[in-house]
Amino acid sequence: MAPYLGAEKTAVRRMARIVMKFGGTSVADVDRMRRVAAFVKREADAGHSIVVAVSAMAGETNRLVALCADAGPPDPALDVRNVEYDTVVASGEQVTSGLVALTLQKMGYRARSWQGWQAPVKTDSAHGKARILEIPDEPLGSAIDTGEIAVVAGFQGVAADGRISTLGRGGSDTTAVALAAALGAERCDIYTDVDGVYTTDPRLSKQARRLDKVSYEEMLEMASLGAKVLQTRSVELAMAYKVKLRVLSSFEPPDSPTPGTTICDEDDIVEKQIVSAITLSKDEAKISLLSVPDEPGRAAMIFGLLADAGINIDMIVQSPSRQAGANISFTMAESELARAVDSLTLAKDKIGYVQMQSDRNVVKVSVIGVGMRSHTGVASTMFKALGEKGINIQNISTSEIKISVLIASDYGELAVRTLHQAYGLDRAQGAS
Amino acid sequence: MAPYLGAEKTAVRRMARIVMKFGGTSVADVDRMRRVAAFVKREADAGHSIVVAVSAMAGETNRLVALCADAGPPDPALDVRNVEYDTVVASGEQVTSGLVALTLQKMGYRARSWQGWQAPVKTDSAHGKARILEIPDEPLGSAIDTGEIAVVAGFQGVAADGRISTLGRGGSDTTAVALAAALGAERCDIYTDVDGVYTTDPRLSKQARRLDKVSYEEMLEMASLGAKVLQTRSVELAMAYKVKLRVLSSFEPPDSPTPGTTICDEDDIVEKQIVSAITLSKDEAKISLLSVPDEPGRAAMIFGLLADAGINIDMIVQSPSRQAGANISFTMAESELARAVDSLTLAKDKIGYVQMQSDRNVVKVSVIGVGMRSHTGVASTMFKALGEKGINIQNISTSEIKISVLIASDYGELAVRTLHQAYGLDRAQGAS
Repeated sequence: MAPYLGAEKTAVRRMARIVMKFGGTSVADVDRMRRVAAFVKREADAGHSIVVAVSAMAGETNRLVALCADAGPPDPALDVRNVEYDTVVASGEQVTSGLVALTLQKMGYRARSWQGWQAPVKTDSAHGKARILEIPDEPLGSAIDTGEIAVVAGFQGVAADGRISTLGRGGSDTTAVALAAALGAERCDIYTDVDGVYTTDPRLSKQARRLDKVSYEEMLEMASLGAKVLQTRSVELAMAYKVKLRVLSSFEPPDSPTPGTTICDEDDIVEKQIVSAITLSKDEAKISLLSVPDEPGRAAMIFGLLADAGINIDMIVQSPSRQAGANISFTMAESELARAVDSLTLAKDKIGYVQMQSDRNVVKVSVIGVGMRSHTGVASTMFKALGEKGINIQNISTSEIKISVLIASDYGELAVRTLHQAYGLDRAQGAS
Repeated sequence: MAPYLGAEKTAVRRMARIVMKFGGTSVADVDRMRRVAAFVKREADAGHSIVVAVSAMAGETNRLVALCADAGPPDPALDVRNVEYDTVVASGEQVTSGLVALTLQKMGYRARSWQGWQAPVKTDSAHGKARILEIPDEPLGSAIDTGEIAVVAGFQGVAADGRISTLGRGGSDTTAVALAAALGAERCDIYTDVDGVYTTDPRLSKQARRLDKVSYEEMLEMASLGAKVLQTRSVELAMAYKVKLRVLSSFEPPDSPTPGTTICDEDDIVEKQIVSAITLSKDEAKISLLSVPDEPGRAAMIFGLLADAGINIDMIVQSPSRQAGANISFTMAESELARAVDSLTLAKDKIGYVQMQSDRNVVKVSVIGVGMRSHTGVASTMFKALGEKGINIQNISTSEIKISVLIASDYGELAVRTLHQAYGLDRAQGAS
C-alpha cells in the first residue's frame, strides 16, 4: 500500500482539516441528522475545513443485506462477496450522505455529498471486505478548503473496474481514518452512541471509567478482543498513519460535548496505566483433539487444514495426554465452530486423533495495558484474583501488552468485575 | 441533441437486442423480482441480447422524497432540484438493479447491474428533470452481446460534473427507450401492471378494450391527456428514434404473456380507427379573467407573466365581454392554480381586468385518433353526443388528431362512457 500522498501538502494550508464520523445510530433519522449538523456547525464555525463521513441509517444495512440474501445466490463463504451485494448495500450510506448534506444546506452551509466513486475512495476488488488503496487529495481537499463541507458516504469505495465496493461491517470508521490520513487532517473524531472508550464495558461493571487517552496498540487489542467501539482495521490504519483519533458521543449536547477518549501514540500518554482495560469476548468456541499421535508435523497438519478452510485459530494449547500422544486444544469464533468440526471430522484418520470435543460455553477475558512491557507481576495478579473466585482457566494466550484467558461462560462477568478491581480500575480508585 | 450513435452498428450483430423495462409494482418485492426474472429468462433463452431497465421498488421513491423534504431546504419551485435530492432518490433504482441482477444470477444467468454513472447515461444538469444527452454503445453493447444480462438502474444518469442526476417521475420509461435507441434494439418492452393501452381507462368504462396497436402520435396525446401508462417524454423519444415500443403486463404468467399493445409508426397500422381512445384528465383548473381591456398586447402580457412563473397554460378561450373588453379563460394543472392566481392578483392593475374567477371543478375529456386527419364529422359527433346528455362544454381545444373539451367534474365519467359508445369503441362492437 502506497497511498495518502495528499498528506504531504498539509504545510501549505492555513486552516486545520477535521474529519468527523457519525455512525448509524447517530444518523438514525432526520431529527438525529439535525443533531449531527449541530456538531458539524461547531467545527465549521471554528473555521476548520470539514469532512463528514457517515454510515447508513441504523437498521438500513441489515434491511439491504436481508434483501440480497433473499434475492441472490448463496455467498461463497470464503470468497469475496458478490459485487451486486456491494451495489445494493452501499446505497444506505448514499442516502445518508445526501440527507446530511441537505440538512447542512438548510442550516445555511455549503455542503455536498461524495460517494465512494466520486471522491474517489479507491479500493481493491475484494468485494464485501475491500481494502482502501488510495484516496487522492484532489478533488476533496480543494473542495473543503473553499469552506464547502464534504459529506462522504462511508463504508464504500470503487474498485479498479469501476464497480462499487464495500469495506465490510464497521467500514465507515475505516473510511473516516483513511480520509484523515489522505487529507492530512488534524484529527479524526468518531462520534458514536457512547462517550468514549471505557476501562471495561459499562454493562458488565458499574465501576467502569472512561479513559481520557489510550494508545493505538491498546485500542487495537481492545478492538480485537471484544470492545465494539472501533473497528480493528480503522485503528490499524490510524496507527500506521499517526492519525489522532477521538471517540466521543453524538448524544451529548452539541454545544458542550464531553471530551471523549483520544487514541494516540503511546509516547503522548504521560500517565501510563499498567493495565488500562479489561475486555470480555463472548464469540468464542473451543475444540479439543485428544490423543493426537505425538509426531512432528501433526500440529502443522491440523492448523494447515483449518487455515485452508479459512478459519482463524486462537489460543492453542498442547499438553501430554494421559492415554497416548498429545491433547491439542484451540479456540475460534463461535460462528466458525461447525465448519472446523466438519473439516476435522473428515480428516480424523489422517490426523489420527482418538476423540474430538467441542465447547461453545467459553469466553475470553483479557487484561490490556502498555505498562505490562515494563512491569512484572501482571499475570500473577490475574491468576491469583481469578483463583480466589474459584474460576478455572482453560487456555492462556499473551502478547506484549495483553493477557487473555479462556474460561467457562458462566464466570465471564464475574471475572471482568474481579479483574477490574484487582488492577485498581474501579471508579472510586481512579480519576474521572 | 446528437446522441445514440451506437445504433449504426446494428448491422454487424447477429442476435437481436431487446430492452425490457419493469416498473415499481413489478419489482415491489423480491418475490415479484423472481417473476421479472422469469420474463427475462424467456427472452434470454430465445438467444437475444438483453438489457433490463428497472424502477425503484414500489413506495421507495416516495419514502426517499419524503426524507429529502424533511431534511432539506425548500426546493426552488421553478429551478432545478437540489442535486442531493437526486443522489438520495436515485438509490432506489440502484437497490432494484442489484437485486434483480442477483435474482438472475441465482437462476444461473450471467447478469450485472449498471448505474446511470456506469453505463453511462449522460444527462444535462437540470437535476430532478434531467434530459438524456447520450448513452454510448460501449461498454453496454459489448457486455450484452457476450450474453451477460445488463440490469440498468432507470430514472437516473450522470451530469457532466460527475454528479448523479434523475430524469423526473416516470423517468425509467425514458431510460428504457433511450437505451433501446442507443443500442439499436429490436424492441423496447415496457412491463407494467396493466396488459396494454386501452380505448379508455377500464376503471371508467367496463366497455374499454385493449388496443393491439396505437401510433406514436396517438400515444403521445394519450400520455399528455391523462393516460398514465407511459411517460410523455419516453413516447416522444420512441417516436424520434423509431423505437418499437410495447406495453405489456408483468402480472400475467411469464410463459404465456398476453401480447400487450404495440406503439409504432402510423404507417405500420393497417386498420386505422377514426377514434382510437377517449381520455379523462382530472388534473385541471380554470381561471377566467373578466372584462380585460380589449387592446393589443393584453393577452401577451397575461400569458407572458404566467410563462415567467413557469406555469403551463392550456385551452385558451377569448370572448367578448357583455360589460366591456374581453373575457379570457384558460386552464392549467390544478397544482399550479394557486401560483397562477397569485401572479395574476399581483398584476391586476397592470393587466386591467375587472374580476378573476377560478374553478377547480373541471375535467378535460379528449377523443384521440389519427383517423381524424382524413375523416370529417368527428367534432360534431362529440358535441352532439355530449349535448344529448345535457353536458355543457366550457372550453375546446383541438389538434390534428384530438379534440379536447373542458366540462364540469361531475360529468367526467358520463362523458367518457358516452363518447366511448358514440365512436363505436364499446367492447361488443369491436374486436378483442
